[in-house]
Amino acid sequence: MGKGITSRSEDYSQWYNDLVIKADLAEYSAVRGCMVIKPYGYGIWERMQAILDKRFKETGHSNAYFPLFIPKSFFSKEASHVDGFAKECAVVTHYRLKNDGNGNIIVDEDAKLEEELIVRPTSETIIWNTYRGWIESYRDLPILVNQWANVVRWEMRTRLFLRTAEFLWQEGHTAHATAEEAIAETEQMLDVYAEFAEKILAVPVVRGRKTENERFAGALDTYCIEALMQDGKALQAGTSHFLGQNFAKAFDVKFTSKEGKLEHVWASSWGVSTRLMGALVMAHSDDQGLILPPKLAPIQVVIVPIYKTEEEKANLDAYVDGLSSELKNLGVSLKYDDRDTQRPGFKFAEWELKGVPLRVAIGARDMQNGTVELARRDTQTKETVEQAGLAGKIHTLLDEIQDNIYQKALKFRDEHITEVNSYDEFKTLLEEKGGFLSCHWDGTVETEKRVKEETKATIRCIPLDAKEEEGVCIFTGKPSKQRVLFAKAY
Amino acid sequence: MGKGITSRSEDYSQWYNDLVIKADLAEYSAVRGCMVIKPYGYGIWERMQAILDKRFKETGHSNAYFPLFIPKSFFSKEASHVDGFAKECAVVTHYRLKNDGNGNIIVDEDAKLEEELIVRPTSETIIWNTYRGWIESYRDLPILVNQWANVVRWEMRTRLFLRTAEFLWQEGHTAHATAEEAIAETEQMLDVYAEFAEKILAVPVVRGRKTENERFAGALDTYCIEALMQDGKALQAGTSHFLGQNFAKAFDVKFTSKEGKLEHVWASSWGVSTRLMGALVMAHSDDQGLILPPKLAPIQVVIVPIYKTEEEKANLDAYVDGLSSELKNLGVSLKYDDRDTQRPGFKFAEWELKGVPLRVAIGARDMQNGTVELARRDTQTKETVEQAGLAGKIHTLLDEIQDNIYQKALKFRDEHITEVNSYDEFKTLLEEKGGFLSCHWDGTVETEKRVKEETKATIRCIPLDAKEEEGVCIFTGKPSKQRVLFAKAY
Repeated sequence: MGKGITSRSEDYSQWYNDLVIKADLAEYSAVRGCMVIKPYGYGIWERMQAILDKRFKETGHSNAYFPLFIPKSFFSKEASHVDGFAKECAVVTHYRLKNDGNGNIIVDEDAKLEEELIVRPTSETIIWNTYRGWIESYRDLPILVNQWANVVRWEMRTRLFLRTAEFLWQEGHTAHATAEEAIAETEQMLDVYAEFAEKILAVPVVRGRKTENERFAGALDTYCIEALMQDGKALQAGTSHFLGQNFAKAFDVKFTSKEGKLEHVWASSWGVSTRLMGALVMAHSDDQGLILPPKLAPIQVVIVPIYKTEEEKANLDAYVDGLSSELKNLGVSLKYDDRDTQRPGFKFAEWELKGVPLRVAIGARDMQNGTVELARRDTQTKETVEQAGLAGKIHTLLDEIQDNIYQKALKFRDEHITEVNSYDEFKTLLEEKGGFLSCHWDGTVETEKRVKEETKATIRCIPLDAKEEEGVCIFTGKPSKQRVLFAKAY
Repeated sequence: MGKGITSRSEDYSQWYNDLVIKADLAEYSAVRGCMVIKPYGYGIWERMQAILDKRFKETGHSNAYFPLFIPKSFFSKEASHVDGFAKECAVVTHYRLKNDGNGNIIVDEDAKLEEELIVRPTSETIIWNTYRGWIESYRDLPILVNQWANVVRWEMRTRLFLRTAEFLWQEGHTAHATAEEAIAETEQMLDVYAEFAEKILAVPVVRGRKTENERFAGALDTYCIEALMQDGKALQAGTSHFLGQNFAKAFDVKFTSKEGKLEHVWASSWGVSTRLMGALVMAHSDDQGLILPPKLAPIQVVIVPIYKTEEEKANLDAYVDGLSSELKNLGVSLKYDDRDTQRPGFKFAEWELKGVPLRVAIGARDMQNGTVELARRDTQTKETVEQAGLAGKIHTLLDEIQDNIYQKALKFRDEHITEVNSYDEFKTLLEEKGGFLSCHWDGTVETEKRVKEETKATIRCIPLDAKEEEGVCIFTGKPSKQRVLFAKAY
């Protein structure tokens, strides 16, 4: 293709990097581990944001904004949280630079902060410190707040979108009068995420709960959605945590109940991030470039004119003008690529690379015949269709494409959930096929850790729909009552 | 009123603080100088964002995202920029904390960064360093990119929204093949800001250019919009900079022109921030609370039912149901405040404080008479109106309120632009009346600085519509060809 993209079979990891960069989604910056999200990639993220934000508001949440910086001491207040988050992080120690007199800009040691500030890796601590001032009685509850923000976790090995030192996300933080309410909220938001993943990203997910070992630092229970990538590795696409009263206790947040008793507040938090961009790319795309589900594609239809003379061009322009307004009325986003600096073949390759779901090519002969050439990105098929009724056909086809992309990913995912009953089989399948391995496990952290050391596979989740079933742990042979899903993961 | 708001005449500055806090717009956080933007305040900011973002896209811009951190050395690359921005800033020096063995979390000195990172105070440097990789030929130009982001400037004296260590803003950064194009862009974005301020915020602004002394660090020319607050102080509400080739030269960004010559790229940058929230509050509000222009009010109409029996309440509910759908169809946002935990008088005071433009109160007798009580927040007037045609009347009234708020601010502003021809008069008026003082100035930085030292007034701008006029500088008596606007400013 001359697009400079490594094929998936050759090197999946390199294919991913090549694609993210060549399709203008993102690139590395001058700052180690931090990415630049380019306009085309950001356009997709904006669509994700808009759809999620609408759902958050429909479920009663409001947005707010909390400080980027968190005093270091806050991390010590919730015992398990500090181990999870206060380790690899960006630490602000000074608030001024100065000229050293030789024209060099250096840190001004006289401007040292009394207490270091941490660039937020997640905001539970600063938010619960704030909620203390917002909550007095049951009348102040629930608090249903979300924040769109940047966060920083100092990762040593980074990959565009999947693992970067700085990333963008949303974090919901809710406060409730009862454990039941907080758990219902946690589960509701998991459903919002799962529906978003399946209906919008076209990525099927398993809904489940994390084991103690994989839980969010500070949570009593972590719910997650787990997706499968084309290389057979799993990707955690969203999490929703029931935090119990841990943060309320750490930050002394109490309320007077209807019965007049003073009690600690119950909490949930939940988030998805620009990591979803990585999931989107890896779940659907191919060696020719991105395959974008129409519901997220910044451009759903590209129209490429093919002409020799100015007169032919004028004819095409007039036709496309009409088609464009029809499509816009149907809510279809489109681009008429009539650049005269590039040939049609170049344009075809470019929009294929960028994953535009439908391409309409139209030339002088098409105009005579009353036809156009319609090419689908997902199936790589072309057909000649009538101009009459084209807008309606495109509109319908976009829904078909959305569904086809999902069905394909679902089929792949379902073919890659394998029931495994012995550790030998486990190791063989993990190497040869990958995917989710559904096995019995004895429920101990130790077994989980040893399997991880030996195979790099982790327990992705205990599926919410796991049925009770007598069995024995594939590793220790101890009794087990349900299967869990193991996989190698991003 | 029992709202705990200081009156404007008593202490304008305290009135502002009280209002921002009591109306649930924002509050200070545990981190010095950083604010929490509360849901009600953030709802207003979201409306500002949505309207501006739409205008940016209509004028051809796309959003993107660049790193939060900037390597320290980047600030030394553009000579004037370093003095303006690299001084008071948050400096990241380490990337890890550790447990000291006694249960204390301390900075891990082994995890010191080779080069310190600055939390962005503005992003010209990191963006132009990135643009170097995006631009080769004139075909890659223009680049029209905007970023919505948080930035940090380590201010010593902070005030909610007006001056905070961290604030939210948008920063546009564009790259062009010619100076003319970059200047046209700079001017276009100033117009976008001015129109937004006047049509949406209902705040009249003077469009002008900054003097050399007040220019953005690194700009050849800074355009601004200046607004006037009720205490007679000016507030810079937005800026748009023509950066010439300064950043292209500092970061070596060149392009091959149509004629095949290698040239440096021309630049603009422009931004508005959460400071606009402060302008909004200070321009319109009164001692009873916020006055929000309908185009920014998260709630445009609040409906308060007044009833004694359940039956009365059911009747009111049924009526409000119908009214609500009519209003929603007209695009009016509303809240039916039927909390049974609060009395009507409490609700009236609360929504007055929060600046809801229109209040509908309706009781059992109104239902019999086919009327409601309609109260305007801007004029503090009440009238009894027919239920028939109410939705349409409200819709029209919201436009009237928007206009009335603007006209009132415009009248105040125009009454506070005073032509002054002597320094004595200047000093007297500055103390007694405030506002913009339109005077002749000799064009030197020195005079500007001395006037500032003596009176705290600065040159807010050289208005774009200033006419040529012979005169003498009020301070030095030297000749001058046009008047400039002095004022004390936020």
